[in-house]
Amino acid sequence: MFQVDLNCDLGESFGRFKLGEQEEILKYITSANIACGFHSGDPSVMRETVKMAISNGVKIGAHPGLPDLNGFGRREMAITPQEGYDMVVYQIGALQGFLATFNEKMQHVKPHGALYNMAAKDPHLAEAIAQAVYDISPSLILFGLSGSELTKAGEKIGLRTAHEVFADRTYQQDGSLTSRSQKDAMITDHEQSAAQVVKMAREGKVVSQQKTEVSLRADTVCIHGDGKHALLFAKYLKESLEQNNITIAAISNWEEASYGKY
Amino acid sequence: MFQVDLNCDLGESFGRFKLGEQEEILKYITSANIACGFHSGDPSVMRETVKMAISNGVKIGAHPGLPDLNGFGRREMAITPQEGYDMVVYQIGALQGFLATFNEKMQHVKPHGALYNMAAKDPHLAEAIAQAVYDISPSLILFGLSGSELTKAGEKIGLRTAHEVFADRTYQQDGSLTSRSQKDAMITDHEQSAAQVVKMAREGKVVSQQKTEVSLRADTVCIHGDGKHALLFAKYLKESLEQNNITIAAISNWEEASYGKY
Amino acid sequence: MFQVDLNCDLGESFGRFKLGEQEEILKYITSANIACGFHSGDPSVMRETVKMAISNGVKIGAHPGLPDLNGFGRREMAITPQEGYDMVVYQIGALQGFLATFNEKMQHVKPHGALYNMAAKDPHLAEAIAQAVYDISPSLILFGLSGSELTKAGEKIGLRTAHEVFADRTYQQDGSLTSRSQKDAMITDHEQSAAQVVKMAREGKVVSQQKTEVSLRADTVCIHGDGKHALLFAKYLKESLEQNNITIAAISNWEEASYGKY
Amino acid sequence: MFQVDLNCDLGESFGRFKLGEQEEILKYITSANIACGFHSGDPSVMRETVKMAISNGVKIGAHPGLPDLNGFGRREMAITPQEGYDMVVYQIGALQGFLATFNEKMQHVKPHGALYNMAAKDPHLAEAIAQAVYDISPSLILFGLSGSELTKAGEKIGLRTAHEVFADRTYQQDGSLTSRSQKDAMITDHEQSAAQVVKMAREGKVVSQQKTEVSLRADTVCIHGDGKHALLFAKYLKESLEQNNITIAAISNWEEASYGKY
Repeated sequence: MFQVDLNCDLGESFGRFKLGEQEEILKYITSANIACGFHSGDPSVMRETVKMAISNGVKIGAHPGLPDLNGFGRREMAITPQEGYDMVVYQIGALQGFLATFNEKMQHVKPHGALYNMAAKDPHLAEAIAQAVYDISPSLILFGLSGSELTKAGEKIGLRTAHEVFADRTYQQDGSLTSRSQKDAMITDHEQSAAQVVKMAREGKVVSQQKTEVSLRADTVCIHGDGKHALLFAKYLKESLEQNNITIAAISNWEEASYGKY
Repeated sequence: MFQVDLNCDLGESFGRFKLGEQEEILKYITSANIACGFHSGDPSVMRETVKMAISNGVKIGAHPGLPDLNGFGRREMAITPQEGYDMVVYQIGALQGFLATFNEKMQHVKPHGALYNMAAKDPHLAEAIAQAVYDISPSLILFGLSGSELTKAGEKIGLRTAHEVFADRTYQQDGSLTSRSQKDAMITDHEQSAAQVVKMAREGKVVSQQKTEVSLRADTVCIHGDGKHALLFAKYLKESLEQNNITIAAISNWEEASYGKY
Repeated sequence: MFQVDLNCDLGESFGRFKLGEQEEILKYITSANIACGFHSGDPSVMRETVKMAISNGVKIGAHPGLPDLNGFGRREMAITPQEGYDMVVYQIGALQGFLATFNEKMQHVKPHGALYNMAAKDPHLAEAIAQAVYDISPSLILFGLSGSELTKAGEKIGLRTAHEVFADRTYQQDGSLTSRSQKDAMITDHEQSAAQVVKMAREGKVVSQQKTEVSLRADTVCIHGDGKHALLFAKYLKESLEQNNITIAAISNWEEASYGKY
Repeated sequence: MFQVDLNCDLGESFGRFKLGEQEEILKYITSANIACGFHSGDPSVMRETVKMAISNGVKIGAHPGLPDLNGFGRREMAITPQEGYDMVVYQIGALQGFLATFNEKMQHVKPHGALYNMAAKDPHLAEAIAQAVYDISPSLILFGLSGSELTKAGEKIGLRTAHEVFADRTYQQDGSLTSRSQKDAMITDHEQSAAQVVKMAREGKVVSQQKTEVSLRADTVCIHGDGKHALLFAKYLKESLEQNNITIAAISNWEEASYGKY
């Protein structure tokens, strides 16, 4: 039996500044990563997004970022592991506040942007973030780049992890994502994108830009909610997964853990 | 049996900017109101302050403020009750994140500065804040100005409340605090200050600036931690209370609720 | 000879958050009020907006706001006149930095949102803002609500002022704007809107909601750049003004001051 | 004739958070680098600091930093050169606003903290900052680490530069500062410190930790205003320089440029 979780970053509006088509994309995903006020999101946006996710039956996770609203959390900052720990605890807690008002539990934590990328490569920061998640609650699931230092750190400390893959990005033969500075980094054709995800979910493999097959674990797929073709992409992907007998389910609802099956 | 809680605002440093003599004042108080990042406090300061309060056996509460670091949360802002609700939920949650990492429960919530003053007078904002506290957890205790709209709103919704009085402020015959713009607003003599608190705790009464006795409930006394004479004041107050057989205890540790005794 | 200036708030994007159709609206206006980073705008947005205004031959003014990005500077804050002075000096200076890099001079200053509204009513704040503008440069023109405390304060100190009227708002018989909480506050019909502006520009009069004629000075008309019908409104207004022989010109380019003509 | 400028970072308070003994240190320095609101400083602090510097006859420069109040601008951030350009223009402009209200001209610009360190090593960022300073005004003097990419970029574009040396830091044989992570990075003895500065000012040389003599240009010496011994250090340094016939003067007041003398 094949299962996959579909996640999307939500709640990225801030005050009068609106981002994303939240209502629509919630129909296609199973896990929502909600911004917690540092790279975007504000208390009112957080409450509204939590409410909307719940009413769509979508599981909720915290999406903590660097304290850089102007850069949308996408500029790397030289923070210490302790600072990383502290800012992750703060942001998870803040989102849990809203979940508490709805009597809802948090499913997962997925760092955002530069914090995600830094934690994928830096084992000290990765360990600090995994520790923060674990210290808040060992039942939280840690989302990280498939095969990264972050998922490694999560597994080492005893957290359940979800290895994340991308529907619209190409891969290199070492399993890394093709850098966005390369012109073939993005997959813009929805059929190619869906085919890549189906292969990753069924076989645990992706065809790299060097035409080699690379193994990678694919627990959850990152879907975008704000590009032009985002909804079309999401809809087509959902249909393709269903046609290939891959169950789309929030990772906390899986009948058994898929990982280990490859 | 007479009991009183002594509370102090803590964790008001921010990054390299340091405020207060935290380590020392913790020896004299029973409840700490910890800043949550909006008017002051940052994630690292919050963690350190929570740790310090726990190691001193002091109960912890959230001290949410307006989003105005430059004004230290002391400038009134025309927020809606919904915005008040949201920013209080966010800040309580953020502090609970740190408490979770220490397996510690939050005792109370006390709004800060302009938010405290606005909620004392505006019943709509007061209800929104009381609702926020209740929605997070009905077991939280709401601290507010004695006899204010905030304590009223808390009681109406079913929260336990702590009526706060001030050791270093004089009162008017209607029970309100003398405005800081008046020259006799502050009590600078530590004996007069202690005597006022003892009378409030034992009799539920204060002598106003108009020389009349005014009834008011005194569950918790606000102590300052950063003035010049703060530690001297605190020490002398503690001794005076003990000499007058008034038990100093965190409100959640009271043997029975004192209120209703007057 | 009748003349009128058309102004619009620009540069209100922030980082990844985009607001407004700047390129288009610049074709219809003569003065741009550029956000300075407090209620919106960031350094990169400011540079790009200054450049775009210059290349469209539109005069540039600073649009300082309250330090409240989340509330878009629309929530009143209890600032002191001195704080108002300081935050206006800071923001004018910041925008002048960008103008200096293009060897361009600033034409005017128009406070934003809650700061604009507060300065319209509070003479102390109005005087502080007028003083700030004057102290930076006596040649700057101060834009304020027609007949308000702000224009009064500007005139008192010796600044040239531009009395602002609104194309899409109705007026009361005392000359004030109908509150947005009233259902007839907004004019949604572009013909009615243009007719109101033409009458204000030619006669210095507006028909109030009470059907009386009210005198008011109309030097500059506020146009919106981000509503649904903004461009249609702007285009139709421009045509109506031209058909009625009202010259549309930046206020610093007027052949003679129109004011005093009524 | 030997001349040296003594500079100090000032205006680093923020709202209720106070830093430094500004009034005192102003007696010993000739150039003040004033924080511009990004890493610290707020509009009111900026006005007060400008006023205080003027009344002490100290020349004023902008001290722009990264937008990281919580990290005091000391955490490196992956900004683009364009972002660096924009944030420097913004901050210089903001400070010039206050200078304009006092009819005072800005002498110099010295980047702060991580921005200073990044610009010392990264030629692209250095060029962007030099360009920003030049575009605001070619008469501004650019302060940078002696022999760094920043002073190089300034000289290339045609700015006068001031090569900065440190009184309380040791040097390596390649002319770089000993990293703060090394235990012998700081000079804590005021005699040793003053002797190092005298040698740098008279001979353009410093004795490195490897006991070799290294050439470096010393136009301006960085003095600290907030350490425990800051004032003692400053006072002793001033006396030592005078005893060694080294004129202490703001760089814009030098009789002739000292550089080129070695």
